[in-house]
Amino acid sequence: MLVVMEHGATTEQIERVAAVIEEMGYQARPMPGAQRTAVGLVGNDGRVDASRIEALPGVAEVIHVTQPYKQASREWHPERTLVPIGPGVVVGGDQVVIIAGPCSVESEQQILTAARGVRAAGATALRGGAFKPRSSPYSFQGLGVKGLELLALARRETGLPIVTEAMDEEGAHLVAEHGDVIQVGARNMQNYSLLKAVGRIGKPVLLKRGMAATINDLLLSAEYILAEGNEQVILCERGVRSFDPAARNLLDLTAVPIVQKLSHLPIIADPSHGTGLREKVTPMARAAIAAGADGVMIEVHPTPDRAKSDGGQSLYPEQFARLVMELRAIAGAIGKSVAPSPGTAPLSIG
Amino acid sequence: MLVVMEHGATTEQIERVAAVIEEMGYQARPMPGAQRTAVGLVGNDGRVDASRIEALPGVAEVIHVTQPYKQASREWHPERTLVPIGPGVVVGGDQVVIIAGPCSVESEQQILTAARGVRAAGATALRGGAFKPRSSPYSFQGLGVKGLELLALARRETGLPIVTEAMDEEGAHLVAEHGDVIQVGARNMQNYSLLKAVGRIGKPVLLKRGMAATINDLLLSAEYILAEGNEQVILCERGVRSFDPAARNLLDLTAVPIVQKLSHLPIIADPSHGTGLREKVTPMARAAIAAGADGVMIEVHPTPDRAKSDGGQSLYPEQFARLVMELRAIAGAIGKSVAPSPGTAPLSIG
Amino acid sequence: MLVVMEHGATTEQIERVAAVIEEMGYQARPMPGAQRTAVGLVGNDGRVDASRIEALPGVAEVIHVTQPYKQASREWHPERTLVPIGPGVVVGGDQVVIIAGPCSVESEQQILTAARGVRAAGATALRGGAFKPRSSPYSFQGLGVKGLELLALARRETGLPIVTEAMDEEGAHLVAEHGDVIQVGARNMQNYSLLKAVGRIGKPVLLKRGMAATINDLLLSAEYILAEGNEQVILCERGVRSFDPAARNLLDLTAVPIVQKLSHLPIIADPSHGTGLREKVTPMARAAIAAGADGVMIEVHPTPDRAKSDGGQSLYPEQFARLVMELRAIAGAIGKSVAPSPGTAPLSIG
Amino acid sequence: MLVVMEHGATTEQIERVAAVIEEMGYQARPMPGAQRTAVGLVGNDGRVDASRIEALPGVAEVIHVTQPYKQASREWHPERTLVPIGPGVVVGGDQVVIIAGPCSVESEQQILTAARGVRAAGATALRGGAFKPRSSPYSFQGLGVKGLELLALARRETGLPIVTEAMDEEGAHLVAEHGDVIQVGARNMQNYSLLKAVGRIGKPVLLKRGMAATINDLLLSAEYILAEGNEQVILCERGVRSFDPAARNLLDLTAVPIVQKLSHLPIIADPSHGTGLREKVTPMARAAIAAGADGVMIEVHPTPDRAKSDGGQSLYPEQFARLVMELRAIAGAIGKSVAPSPGTAPLSIG
Repeated sequence: MLVVMEHGATTEQIERVAAVIEEMGYQARPMPGAQRTAVGLVGNDGRVDASRIEALPGVAEVIHVTQPYKQASREWHPERTLVPIGPGVVVGGDQVVIIAGPCSVESEQQILTAARGVRAAGATALRGGAFKPRSSPYSFQGLGVKGLELLALARRETGLPIVTEAMDEEGAHLVAEHGDVIQVGARNMQNYSLLKAVGRIGKPVLLKRGMAATINDLLLSAEYILAEGNEQVILCERGVRSFDPAARNLLDLTAVPIVQKLSHLPIIADPSHGTGLREKVTPMARAAIAAGADGVMIEVHPTPDRAKSDGGQSLYPEQFARLVMELRAIAGAIGKSVAPSPGTAPLSIG
Repeated sequence: MLVVMEHGATTEQIERVAAVIEEMGYQARPMPGAQRTAVGLVGNDGRVDASRIEALPGVAEVIHVTQPYKQASREWHPERTLVPIGPGVVVGGDQVVIIAGPCSVESEQQILTAARGVRAAGATALRGGAFKPRSSPYSFQGLGVKGLELLALARRETGLPIVTEAMDEEGAHLVAEHGDVIQVGARNMQNYSLLKAVGRIGKPVLLKRGMAATINDLLLSAEYILAEGNEQVILCERGVRSFDPAARNLLDLTAVPIVQKLSHLPIIADPSHGTGLREKVTPMARAAIAAGADGVMIEVHPTPDRAKSDGGQSLYPEQFARLVMELRAIAGAIGKSVAPSPGTAPLSIG
Repeated sequence: MLVVMEHGATTEQIERVAAVIEEMGYQARPMPGAQRTAVGLVGNDGRVDASRIEALPGVAEVIHVTQPYKQASREWHPERTLVPIGPGVVVGGDQVVIIAGPCSVESEQQILTAARGVRAAGATALRGGAFKPRSSPYSFQGLGVKGLELLALARRETGLPIVTEAMDEEGAHLVAEHGDVIQVGARNMQNYSLLKAVGRIGKPVLLKRGMAATINDLLLSAEYILAEGNEQVILCERGVRSFDPAARNLLDLTAVPIVQKLSHLPIIADPSHGTGLREKVTPMARAAIAAGADGVMIEVHPTPDRAKSDGGQSLYPEQFARLVMELRAIAGAIGKSVAPSPGTAPLSIG
Repeated sequence: MLVVMEHGATTEQIERVAAVIEEMGYQARPMPGAQRTAVGLVGNDGRVDASRIEALPGVAEVIHVTQPYKQASREWHPERTLVPIGPGVVVGGDQVVIIAGPCSVESEQQILTAARGVRAAGATALRGGAFKPRSSPYSFQGLGVKGLELLALARRETGLPIVTEAMDEEGAHLVAEHGDVIQVGARNMQNYSLLKAVGRIGKPVLLKRGMAATINDLLLSAEYILAEGNEQVILCERGVRSFDPAARNLLDLTAVPIVQKLSHLPIIADPSHGTGLREKVTPMARAAIAAGADGVMIEVHPTPDRAKSDGGQSLYPEQFARLVMELRAIAGAIGKSVAPSPGTAPLSIG
């Protein structure tokens, strides 16, 4: 950490900064410059709380050199983490995963049709919402526990591992019971009570980036889960808020290589929420894999124009089947492959 | 709602849109234009889910004319809502409120000193965090229930109503027990489980705007609380994310008159988090009152350079005292006044 | 400047950074830390180009400690700059200025009516566009030189100094000939050819902040003008791009105290473009003055619903007159006053 | 265009809106709803100026249904525009182009080495700045006309067409004389004097998206050029401003399919400026091609750590050579190919 003093800071002010740093248990190293003095804090273990120093007279700025997250950092854990989410399905290696399915679970028939369809087309895992965070209290809020039971049924039918969202601690326990990956949605990325709960539960977690979260914020939220002893965290870029209404969100694919440099955790992309526009899902899913993402998460609905939520961004089944073919070609072009559906042989007809 | 068809949409596509609208129980009103046809949806009660229509072939765009929130809307509830938060203290009328205190409750001595100080300077209510949402799991997380008990003690000592944050349903019940206003923080603005919980509890709620929340999003989150039967909601502008690192957040004071036009709920501003810089708190608190805010929420600490959190944005007690004087003058300039401290007479010495 | 090395950077990499710094004519000061080494660059005169160092192997990040602008900086020029824009009218002192008038000059009658009206209500200077930067090539582009001549006529009639925009070097010379302050619009804030031209011309310049410009960018653009020997620069906050469509722009009033800390140049606010909504202009103009702005710039039109541009954000004359009264009260509340109209005595009837 | 009236607007207010619409030469079509009335404007040719209507009493909002650009719109010009930029080099077809070279022209040796290197690796055109828009007046501003002459020399040596930036009308004429494509930079995207000038000159134009420009803004700026009779416009996504300091800009690759849906003009991506980080250029260039971009523009420098500008984001020649191989594989995966270097046969050894 570097404490930059104001031009014109007095010797006493500089000494007081140094004294506070020492009092906090670190070493202070003043560094006079041509225009202003800076005081380095040596020994920072990433847990220094700067606010006390920011408040000292004569301090212009506090600059953080050390990353505030530790367990999520690749500097301290160079090997990439592999997260197994089902029999033979691992996220984070040379095979990219394709998680697909409807926005919401709507009925037994809908989720089974969807699951069989995406399985036949080549998906690796099934997504589907049982607890739905909706901006309006009057929108469809999901089937709840009934939805989880239907997802478990779809897993028995297709072998696909289940990825589904939890919105609070109680829901996280229910998802852990019926599903394979607990999703923490963008709106809850900084819901620390929920992060601690999924950390304690210990199942794989899919953590989505918040709409205004920096990558630093995202990794700090992952750190909350890791700090509870759960390393099975998959990150997910799903678009951030932008000034341009041309798309629902702005899918920040550069986050993929940035996260892979800073952290050992796998990162996938969700071009369905990331664009909010069906026609843009295919090109942006291809782009995500080309950028090096460890997978994609795609909304597919048997009949999008009858969907209870997000119909406008869900692919038709035949669009999804074509997309899987393209993703295989793109993955091949950069030396990777698409993970096969679990237990592919007996189920390949779908 | 207006469904804009693509230039070149076929008659069948237009008829299908109309049929779906009728099937949903509304009236469809096609409106052919020189360049493209639009189909109006008549009878919208604000609960139409557009995603199904967006997915129909030939649809270019769906434009929402009706506001998606109802109970929070001023169109349907023209009289402004008054929220009483303590004996004789009401938010939303001609008197602006000043909620002040430290970021976190740190100790009995700290919170009592702070409470007496802000009370003496003219504050209307006391703020102080017992449950702290911190970006890093390694930062001070608050004293929890012990902190709530100390806040209750400070209220007994000073008469100031207590505003403090809850981060989950369990915490909300604890805050309701010890405090007067349950704060929902910016990071939890779309934590719908928490919003429903504070809606059911029925105590006054201070709902902070999320870092990337539009005003529409903020009012929809308020709608979640109102939909549970709790109308005691105070909104709070506390800065949004911006591209400029010059301040921690970008305080959007225009939100004040915009919310007051769209909603009957009171809105205050938090220039401490809204700027993150002590020197900017005073001018921006003045600006908030000049813009018509129903109050301000200010971080004040007896000894900011020893604070366990947010020291750099906390005012020194004497700065706060000067600020209250200035706010009185500004309020007077626009025909308002600052609400007196509760039970001012016997406690005026502080 | 501080060059932060990657954790695990080799001694050779650190030495190479130091060697390049020395080669560039500065001193290198390595600073080993517990987790990584940083190398300080001493002797930075604000003109160091970091890109060469960023490219060196082992470098994680380059952190700028010194401000990149010099002549615009208050550190090197503590006394605030006063910019005289007309007889007895100075921007930057204890009197706040009110620059008012229509978006565009439309006709002799329109501009004279407008000028007399704002003069009578208490304006200090007249605004009005002759060259209009419009997003669409099909929108009204202004009257050009004819508009400048009408502005000069309005000045003769009312004594109000003229503030009007130039869009290129040729236009800047024309504005300098007919007007008093050359406005550089938000879209041209980083049009360096234009900045150099207005720097050379030497007349007062009103430099508006670009829609995505940081305050650092704004001060660097001012530096372009100052570097040509022209210190007569007034900065103007006029709103930045935001994710919220509730207002046309997001007026960033915190920019006012931030600029006043960093720079000696005066700064005013334009709540008309900053909000784009007539009803929000009055509260935000009040807020700007309460935040300490050196003035406001307000669109006023004799008949806004007949305006050729920006009618929706222009005040009616009677609204403006009330606003001036409120601004006087607000200015008084913080120990300032509103500058009188030039030559007020003989013209006070309007 | 749809004029949405306030809930509670009077019949007179609605009739006045209708009257103004008729007065402007269009048809008014009132459309009463359950909650509020809307008035449709029929006959809109995309040139309606809404500000006059926004200002009318009782108007809540004006919603634009028709696109404000015409000549740039794909609705009116469905065939995609092909822009030839050199012998046998066309932008916008099935072959993607790779424009590569240093940020700035620095010397004869540097530009010739760079040109030969990128030519040998497979580039289609040469980039290099002679006039450099720099945030700081103290940064290297380019070699000017001398730089243009060196670029022309490099073209004679390698056959590569030249893409280089102009910052004002005078510069545009010089670039037209020495180069093949006039680049308008992000900072000048709304410099309308420059847009009109390059429209009149009639040479191919590379128009970069501004840092806070919506796609609508970008297409309106293109419209300025087209309106002067020049259809040879190539658009370029180069990253927008974001709240996340993790990258210099946020490369918005979804802009590629969005622009291709809305406009017939080709669009390329610049991952060098779009990320500002050398290590991210390769994955994001791949992603751009996978998203369907018509080309990429890449900064490559013979010796990046000696570059006078943007060294940190320039590829080493061997990195660029590998990238070209990957781009060929990605283009193949989606049924495209990379355009060969002009006159490839005799020069293929480099």
